[in-house]
Amino acid sequence: MELSNFKEIVKNYKVVFFDAYGVLKTYKGILDGVKEMLAFLQSQSIEFYILTNDASRSPELLAASYNKVGIHDITTDKIISSGMLAQEYVQHKVKSGTVVYLGTHNSAYYIKQEGVKALSISEVDFLHLDEISAIVFLDDEGYNWNEDLNKVLNLLRKTAVPVVIANTDSTYPIAKQDVAISVGAIADMLERIARKTFIRFGKPDSQIFNYAYNHIPNSSGIVKQDILMVGDSLTTDIIGANKFGIDTCLVLSGNTLSDNYKLMIDSLGIIPNYVCKSVAL
Amino acid sequence: MELSNFKEIVKNYKVVFFDAYGVLKTYKGILDGVKEMLAFLQSQSIEFYILTNDASRSPELLAASYNKVGIHDITTDKIISSGMLAQEYVQHKVKSGTVVYLGTHNSAYYIKQEGVKALSISEVDFLHLDEISAIVFLDDEGYNWNEDLNKVLNLLRKTAVPVVIANTDSTYPIAKQDVAISVGAIADMLERIARKTFIRFGKPDSQIFNYAYNHIPNSSGIVKQDILMVGDSLTTDIIGANKFGIDTCLVLSGNTLSDNYKLMIDSLGIIPNYVCKSVAL
Amino acid sequence: MELSNFKEIVKNYKVVFFDAYGVLKTYKGILDGVKEMLAFLQSQSIEFYILTNDASRSPELLAASYNKVGIHDITTDKIISSGMLAQEYVQHKVKSGTVVYLGTHNSAYYIKQEGVKALSISEVDFLHLDEISAIVFLDDEGYNWNEDLNKVLNLLRKTAVPVVIANTDSTYPIAKQDVAISVGAIADMLERIARKTFIRFGKPDSQIFNYAYNHIPNSSGIVKQDILMVGDSLTTDIIGANKFGIDTCLVLSGNTLSDNYKLMIDSLGIIPNYVCKSVAL
Amino acid sequence: MELSNFKEIVKNYKVVFFDAYGVLKTYKGILDGVKEMLAFLQSQSIEFYILTNDASRSPELLAASYNKVGIHDITTDKIISSGMLAQEYVQHKVKSGTVVYLGTHNSAYYIKQEGVKALSISEVDFLHLDEISAIVFLDDEGYNWNEDLNKVLNLLRKTAVPVVIANTDSTYPIAKQDVAISVGAIADMLERIARKTFIRFGKPDSQIFNYAYNHIPNSSGIVKQDILMVGDSLTTDIIGANKFGIDTCLVLSGNTLSDNYKLMIDSLGIIPNYVCKSVAL
Repeated sequence: MELSNFKEIVKNYKVVFFDAYGVLKTYKGILDGVKEMLAFLQSQSIEFYILTNDASRSPELLAASYNKVGIHDITTDKIISSGMLAQEYVQHKVKSGTVVYLGTHNSAYYIKQEGVKALSISEVDFLHLDEISAIVFLDDEGYNWNEDLNKVLNLLRKTAVPVVIANTDSTYPIAKQDVAISVGAIADMLERIARKTFIRFGKPDSQIFNYAYNHIPNSSGIVKQDILMVGDSLTTDIIGANKFGIDTCLVLSGNTLSDNYKLMIDSLGIIPNYVCKSVAL
Repeated sequence: MELSNFKEIVKNYKVVFFDAYGVLKTYKGILDGVKEMLAFLQSQSIEFYILTNDASRSPELLAASYNKVGIHDITTDKIISSGMLAQEYVQHKVKSGTVVYLGTHNSAYYIKQEGVKALSISEVDFLHLDEISAIVFLDDEGYNWNEDLNKVLNLLRKTAVPVVIANTDSTYPIAKQDVAISVGAIADMLERIARKTFIRFGKPDSQIFNYAYNHIPNSSGIVKQDILMVGDSLTTDIIGANKFGIDTCLVLSGNTLSDNYKLMIDSLGIIPNYVCKSVAL
Repeated sequence: MELSNFKEIVKNYKVVFFDAYGVLKTYKGILDGVKEMLAFLQSQSIEFYILTNDASRSPELLAASYNKVGIHDITTDKIISSGMLAQEYVQHKVKSGTVVYLGTHNSAYYIKQEGVKALSISEVDFLHLDEISAIVFLDDEGYNWNEDLNKVLNLLRKTAVPVVIANTDSTYPIAKQDVAISVGAIADMLERIARKTFIRFGKPDSQIFNYAYNHIPNSSGIVKQDILMVGDSLTTDIIGANKFGIDTCLVLSGNTLSDNYKLMIDSLGIIPNYVCKSVAL
Repeated sequence: MELSNFKEIVKNYKVVFFDAYGVLKTYKGILDGVKEMLAFLQSQSIEFYILTNDASRSPELLAASYNKVGIHDITTDKIISSGMLAQEYVQHKVKSGTVVYLGTHNSAYYIKQEGVKALSISEVDFLHLDEISAIVFLDDEGYNWNEDLNKVLNLLRKTAVPVVIANTDSTYPIAKQDVAISVGAIADMLERIARKTFIRFGKPDSQIFNYAYNHIPNSSGIVKQDILMVGDSLTTDIIGANKFGIDTCLVLSGNTLSDNYKLMIDSLGIIPNYVCKSVAL
């Protein structure tokens, strides 16, 4: 599978879904050429959205982080985070009671709703377990792992409430050579120990793609064939979008490396429609 | 969680999604009271659909099997099978070439499309591997396991094409005490051996719920809160529908038994909105 | 499978292997009748050993904990801990260099050896990675989970050294209703994230049984048929000892409960030779 | 890790354990230099054994297959097959009743014992389930997969007897580019479906290494440090022998390839003591 030029490909679509990390930005900041590429999309009236496995902050704060580095085209309405699916779940399926969360105060944005009380795991009182209506994993920060993961394990053993993972990733990059354990891996560990079945939101699961799809203004007459997913991870972005039924473009500016992308595609059997070095035009 | 009367519950919804096996029928035939219950739905203008992990036969043939036992309300347009999602995948993502399938001639219905050649695994010729554009697991019958599963394993090792599982179930019941290995379990075994990543369609994955949701006539103004999923399996019907965001009713006429449903709900942490003995009014 | 009297069973063996937790003691202390039972074994010249998945303390300290509550028959030479297998691995296979450990200072007992430097994960300096010769998971205490688990993940990514888990348990009981996450579950999470293959010591793996078997004085002429394993867990004590080829006795004073032991035996397909209420005579 | 010369390494040991496939032979026959290498071992009074995950034939027949191609040094007493551990299990733990097996008549060698009736899965009669005392997976041949795997699944659901897998491999090579599904993968599938816990014999599990170790004449005074395991698979031969505590030599004449062995060692974290191109001197 040979490399294509991103400009030649993207111009054939009406809507683009971008993964954030490894595609638009890295731990160091915005990738080269992203600003120009987004301006090109605007000039061609190509719609775009950012699909991100991130429940650590509200869409407002996620958009603000792009704005701060000079990318003004990524506004709040462009952000589709896995946290928004957890938010919808709490709204339509949980509706009331106390929702215990693992994450920072910023991540609790996705829980705080009319009729629902958001309670950090660190503040849970085992005397009032009957008020708890759900448990949501939002972020790997905002609590003490030793103490609070043992606390959530015993909470899982003593209650029968739905458990939601709002970010299925196992790790996230924090420096050129370093990664951190993500809340997805922590939740996986607890699910196995407690022998429960959790609900997962985020790529590669198709529900986030569908959520984004329904976000596109109805009047536009967009069908799946008009949409391109651009991502750096075969096992989340590409397989998920393939399954959802939209075209896919793998970029080599993040997780998947130039010197072994062919091997990865062949060995996993996950086939993007296109491969580009990056999203730079 | 106490038992409810199905009639009292269902009347509050505009659309019902039914699982087939264990809810409407068993290995012996249609369950008692199903005919009357469907007539009641009609009388109340409550729409319904059958969501089934089945890619062994076309929706026409699946509907015909109900007709044959005197249930005339289940017409072809009421059937949403996991095979239909595989069919859509072949249509939008594969588009051309030779699609190798594991299943009977009846199951090949979901592959046969304009521009696509359906080829049974038993007829694959290893000299023309470059014509193969996808591999689809449809059914556990229609081929020789010893010979053809070894054949598909070597095909997986020698090609890099998408692989689709059109039925994720591990077993299906064939008599009061007996089950048979389903194509989902066979595909799982091959995925692990070949270390590939397959694409799965069928409950509990949300895509089949979304497919059914999009099937409801647009004009109806139906929202998720208007829909009830009725199923006998916590780990497929109930968890999948919960995640999709619709209400759920567990019935005790199939997989989940009257004497331990409370234990199952608690130990798995999968909570239906209601539990009923059966769909009989 | 009906209940037997422990005295009637144990008198037919020359050696007994006991699990510790749930068999001889609980979070509250020594179980009723253990002192008398051990005196009976002594009177009958029946040898016994404690086989425990524990690498948190030396055999000396483990024995001392029994002595403190008035059980003087459990001396250091009676203790076979999974930590001792990790100790042997470091001695024969690692031999030199710096061995990084996760655990308390007490657990480091199993690492500290002639020619080997034991270094807590919290003190690892990423500038001297080439001196590291192995990583050993000993205990869930003695380090900061947030910080040090991220540290060990990056250490795993940057070195290629053997990784040893000295206790494969997922949880351990800390109160009547409460458990804590054990180092085995933490190591499992990191193994999956890092996609490495770790080395595991502890029941149900047969190596700890073999280590205990080789511990029995040679002169005794003991064969496997002379040994009885007594444990409260089907999936560690009983399956491991069955596979090793010795007879097994399940006791109902710990993990496996009186009201569902038959169901557990049937559903797991793990069959002990005997079941007793407890080890009390 | 640089390549070593096999002769320089092997001369430092008193006993060598060889894997068979990929080390001594391939699908085409005996590898070059094996005959001379074995003669060298004899000349140096170095003992050797073949440790093989194979329960398809008796040690006699396995030895005969070497004899037929001109290797007369591999006699029956040199063969340690995983089938022999299953045989020991039946002898010491099952002892009586009907043992149902999946395999050919040749593989049934490991079941047939005083007091035990060996019964092929294809001949099982569901009317006499109470006579069944164990189920043993020996080989992927000798029965009809479609029919008999469904049969064994229902047998697993209706009985609570120990289940033994006498060969844990997932595949075995049958031609330069082709593999076949091994009985280990089939058993894994059934274990998952039936939610039982099976007993596994064969590398990398330490029990086969211990069995071989105990096979060495007592008088020899051999300790673990005197033994070298030679294998072509990091995840079976090397990790298993490392854990057992003996030295290890990876050869590049089989599963692990010359052009990526360093990458494999680093990415898996499984470190052999030596790497050699082959066992040729």
